[in-house]
Amino acid sequence: MSHFRERRLRTFLEQYKDRARLLISCPDRSGIVAAVTTFLYNQGANIVESSQYSTDPEGGTFFLRIEFDCPEMISRKREMEEAFEPVAKQFQMNWRFSLHSELKKIAIFVSKEEHCLLELLWEWQAGELLADLALVISNHEHTRDSVEALGIPYYYIPVTKENKREAEREQISLLKKYEIDTIVLARYMQILSPDFVAEFPFRIINIHHSFLPAFVGAKPYERAYERGVKLIGATSHYVTDELDEGPIIEQDVARVDHKHHPEDLKRIGRIIEKTVLSRALKWHLEDRVLIHQNKTIVFK
Amino acid sequence: MSHFRERRLRTFLEQYKDRARLLISCPDRSGIVAAVTTFLYNQGANIVESSQYSTDPEGGTFFLRIEFDCPEMISRKREMEEAFEPVAKQFQMNWRFSLHSELKKIAIFVSKEEHCLLELLWEWQAGELLADLALVISNHEHTRDSVEALGIPYYYIPVTKENKREAEREQISLLKKYEIDTIVLARYMQILSPDFVAEFPFRIINIHHSFLPAFVGAKPYERAYERGVKLIGATSHYVTDELDEGPIIEQDVARVDHKHHPEDLKRIGRIIEKTVLSRALKWHLEDRVLIHQNKTIVFK
Amino acid sequence: MSHFRERRLRTFLEQYKDRARLLISCPDRSGIVAAVTTFLYNQGANIVESSQYSTDPEGGTFFLRIEFDCPEMISRKREMEEAFEPVAKQFQMNWRFSLHSELKKIAIFVSKEEHCLLELLWEWQAGELLADLALVISNHEHTRDSVEALGIPYYYIPVTKENKREAEREQISLLKKYEIDTIVLARYMQILSPDFVAEFPFRIINIHHSFLPAFVGAKPYERAYERGVKLIGATSHYVTDELDEGPIIEQDVARVDHKHHPEDLKRIGRIIEKTVLSRALKWHLEDRVLIHQNKTIVFK
Amino acid sequence: MSHFRERRLRTFLEQYKDRARLLISCPDRSGIVAAVTTFLYNQGANIVESSQYSTDPEGGTFFLRIEFDCPEMISRKREMEEAFEPVAKQFQMNWRFSLHSELKKIAIFVSKEEHCLLELLWEWQAGELLADLALVISNHEHTRDSVEALGIPYYYIPVTKENKREAEREQISLLKKYEIDTIVLARYMQILSPDFVAEFPFRIINIHHSFLPAFVGAKPYERAYERGVKLIGATSHYVTDELDEGPIIEQDVARVDHKHHPEDLKRIGRIIEKTVLSRALKWHLEDRVLIHQNKTIVFK
Repeated sequence: MSHFRERRLRTFLEQYKDRARLLISCPDRSGIVAAVTTFLYNQGANIVESSQYSTDPEGGTFFLRIEFDCPEMISRKREMEEAFEPVAKQFQMNWRFSLHSELKKIAIFVSKEEHCLLELLWEWQAGELLADLALVISNHEHTRDSVEALGIPYYYIPVTKENKREAEREQISLLKKYEIDTIVLARYMQILSPDFVAEFPFRIINIHHSFLPAFVGAKPYERAYERGVKLIGATSHYVTDELDEGPIIEQDVARVDHKHHPEDLKRIGRIIEKTVLSRALKWHLEDRVLIHQNKTIVFK
Repeated sequence: MSHFRERRLRTFLEQYKDRARLLISCPDRSGIVAAVTTFLYNQGANIVESSQYSTDPEGGTFFLRIEFDCPEMISRKREMEEAFEPVAKQFQMNWRFSLHSELKKIAIFVSKEEHCLLELLWEWQAGELLADLALVISNHEHTRDSVEALGIPYYYIPVTKENKREAEREQISLLKKYEIDTIVLARYMQILSPDFVAEFPFRIINIHHSFLPAFVGAKPYERAYERGVKLIGATSHYVTDELDEGPIIEQDVARVDHKHHPEDLKRIGRIIEKTVLSRALKWHLEDRVLIHQNKTIVFK
Repeated sequence: MSHFRERRLRTFLEQYKDRARLLISCPDRSGIVAAVTTFLYNQGANIVESSQYSTDPEGGTFFLRIEFDCPEMISRKREMEEAFEPVAKQFQMNWRFSLHSELKKIAIFVSKEEHCLLELLWEWQAGELLADLALVISNHEHTRDSVEALGIPYYYIPVTKENKREAEREQISLLKKYEIDTIVLARYMQILSPDFVAEFPFRIINIHHSFLPAFVGAKPYERAYERGVKLIGATSHYVTDELDEGPIIEQDVARVDHKHHPEDLKRIGRIIEKTVLSRALKWHLEDRVLIHQNKTIVFK
Repeated sequence: MSHFRERRLRTFLEQYKDRARLLISCPDRSGIVAAVTTFLYNQGANIVESSQYSTDPEGGTFFLRIEFDCPEMISRKREMEEAFEPVAKQFQMNWRFSLHSELKKIAIFVSKEEHCLLELLWEWQAGELLADLALVISNHEHTRDSVEALGIPYYYIPVTKENKREAEREQISLLKKYEIDTIVLARYMQILSPDFVAEFPFRIINIHHSFLPAFVGAKPYERAYERGVKLIGATSHYVTDELDEGPIIEQDVARVDHKHHPEDLKRIGRIIEKTVLSRALKWHLEDRVLIHQNKTIVFK
């Protein structure tokens, strides 16, 4: 099926070779947008999308995401970054340029439940998931075939109480070796240590199988059943040291009723889980998700 | 506008004068449906709707709701009840017949927020809320005009820490005087005492302005904002002694994003609150909501 | 209840007296955003929200909506408009400034079905519908009381085949007299003549009780029932000469099933209708809805 | 991955070996339910689920679906059918018993778009699609690998104007050979001839990529884009001779906006299509979908 991917990818890279985005956060004050857009204009760039948000016009934080087309962007990126320095300095900006053509390198972590992994694999094959899927890491062998069938490296790293530290060291060294930018926990049923999380701040995306903050932690579907809720949900969020307390990127729900047993909730929930994770991941890959005080700003 | 109500009501009472429902719960075993439907057939009744649910075919509880038409039902109810006794005895049933034409007497409790009250008032006027709305009780004067304009008695009973017991006694005596069957807390911002709740077991319906079990208790919108959820919700449930822990009847949600401040969440939430409360109340009024171990079975 | 409105309104006008928006559409080319934002900066304005869209970066139409705060905005509007002329000229812009504090004058048209009118009246009273609701026009007397109770003028103008032209002349002269900006057809069951529509281009908002383009025209719920759809919907759109073919502003749906008769669909549909109309109207009042080739661009 | 399927299937067949359903439609009159449930009781069956619907209590059609457990059901089916004859005769019933353990044999037809096929394949592997997936027929080779990898026969039957009759004859003979009960058109981009449809009345399920009756026929996403709708949908329905006019089983929608081009609508739509088709197919496989006058009654 990968011929889809290659074709789609080639088209994409041709179409967007001159497309880039500029991401900025800084103290809010007037003049920021004027300065940035004037800069881009002088660089010969044409703005195609622009989103901004201020936590508070008086003394808040200002967030800006601009997509633009600029001839020869790939070769000119470095020089543009240098030219932008003074503007950034003037407004105390955190900022970066990123190119559409530079796909993020991602790793998928998975345990036994394969539905989220398979959804991402299919989207990747179809050329809809625009990322460089470098490897899959699992604490089980279940999904090896599906992954290797697509020529993606699969690493089986069992995790026990005893070897957890070691296993994480092994995982991290793989992630470094493959220069992974973003880690997707596609129903990975292990809690990552603070050390691991610290290595990839706001670059680990998890899918939790409940409508957070309801049912934090284990067995959410069983607890949803016990409580007798009429809707179940799933939540994709960045991983932090607080279990299931990281910034929420996306959520969705589906209707259930008294006839549904936990097994039914799981079946219904799988569709929400994979859809929500896929949406959240795409927004992240397009740098549409910014973070402010444990909350996300999503520029859709 | 009440002419709507009278006309709709008259039509309804003519159309459904022979319509009744039989509600049953009992230990599950085979033969129940056969016995009940044979009984109704011998009574000359025609079943128009039937819903059943068993918590567990082996040794669980069986719930049955049957709607039927029977000539002269109003006059024959008593005799039918007597005739049913032996069947009920045989299967150890909790059971009751109720007539479509016997509208439940309800009281609405409200504080300052008027949107849920106004929705119910409008549906009542339009003849869509098929209940006998006997009175409105409030700890504020805000909504008196809207209520009295429709000829519905309005009782202002302020509640403070000091007078709470007394206020509840006053409320209860009013509810007894008006022979109230069901109490609707339409954003009534007072916690009812266990004594009050015990007077009306599973006959007090509350609307909580969050997607329970998330954000139990006070200021749910502010907390939803703090957590950065991407959906907000509302939950209608029966009131028990555990705050916001009673059996859930209905829930719904709406999408929000980072641009929404708590005031926006409240505005968006109002529509969910009034819609969810209205749906839940109607199911309750039609005896479609059965309760089992702090969960509801809703026969839609 | 209007004390809500006055309080909310006063707060609003204080809070937003310096808030304005600039609306622009012009041929797309680079430099537009830079020019506009630099202009605003030089005027001492602080941008608080900005949305843009281009139908096509090569030779398409560019749409821009900017919300900004500027000291003394009310008194400085005229001068700012003059100062903007050259910028506008350079880019061949259609443009206008509008002040948050200048509420649009609206008229509501209604027939017998009152749910949409009542929803808007309630939101207006609650201070949530930020418009100057100048009058209500109806071809029936049904809703006079609800309207006049709020001190809003109510005009009863019956419409027949014979007097249609004349009736419309009467309506138009009222709308002129009250200097109406926007007309809301809140379930107004008369088709407006091309002459009438031509008087208020893209300033008449209708709610159609179906999920357009399904069930254009009369009796959509009956036809939805006939077709056996599993979802029903409502659509708010601008009125053009083509019946139900104008630019769609907002749509929503609700789930139904085989048990629902046309009367049930109408009951369920009412909630969608009033919610969709209310959302669409608010976006229109905030100048968030732009039009391009019979489609809307909605800057939420 | 098929080990999931085998395990799930084994559990299912053990758990439900005594589970059967009885499906009835007949002229409505009183006594039907009593007669049927008494019959089942005398047969030693325990009813676990029962759904009924009458198009009209006076002289309408009555539909009944009962799920029950009965010891030795598999061996006793024949005898039970004979015993039921007189009851069926008395009420002029169309009726049949079917066993949970008798999985329906299905064939999937697909063209180039693979997302619906892949979803069904995954659910089948996971043991969630409880059918005997006998073969896949396609007018393209694209999806051969994914299908054969699971050991499912794949037949490539190209279709042109010229060979259409012949191609359909070939398809039909395959479907007969495999004794196919239900045909799933998982984005099969060919219109079946009336002769073909007549061979499988109400046993061909299609997924149409629009919210019917909007956008019947070709290129629905392009037309949805042209019309500027704010929601797109998908519809699963039985195939009849009228294109896209067959009884609707299930529909769903997703929100879109002005930024979405037809390619985006297709991407968003794929998720709705595969979810809706999967839901509709499962209900069909469980005999939950009954048909009356080109509409479905779905006993969820």
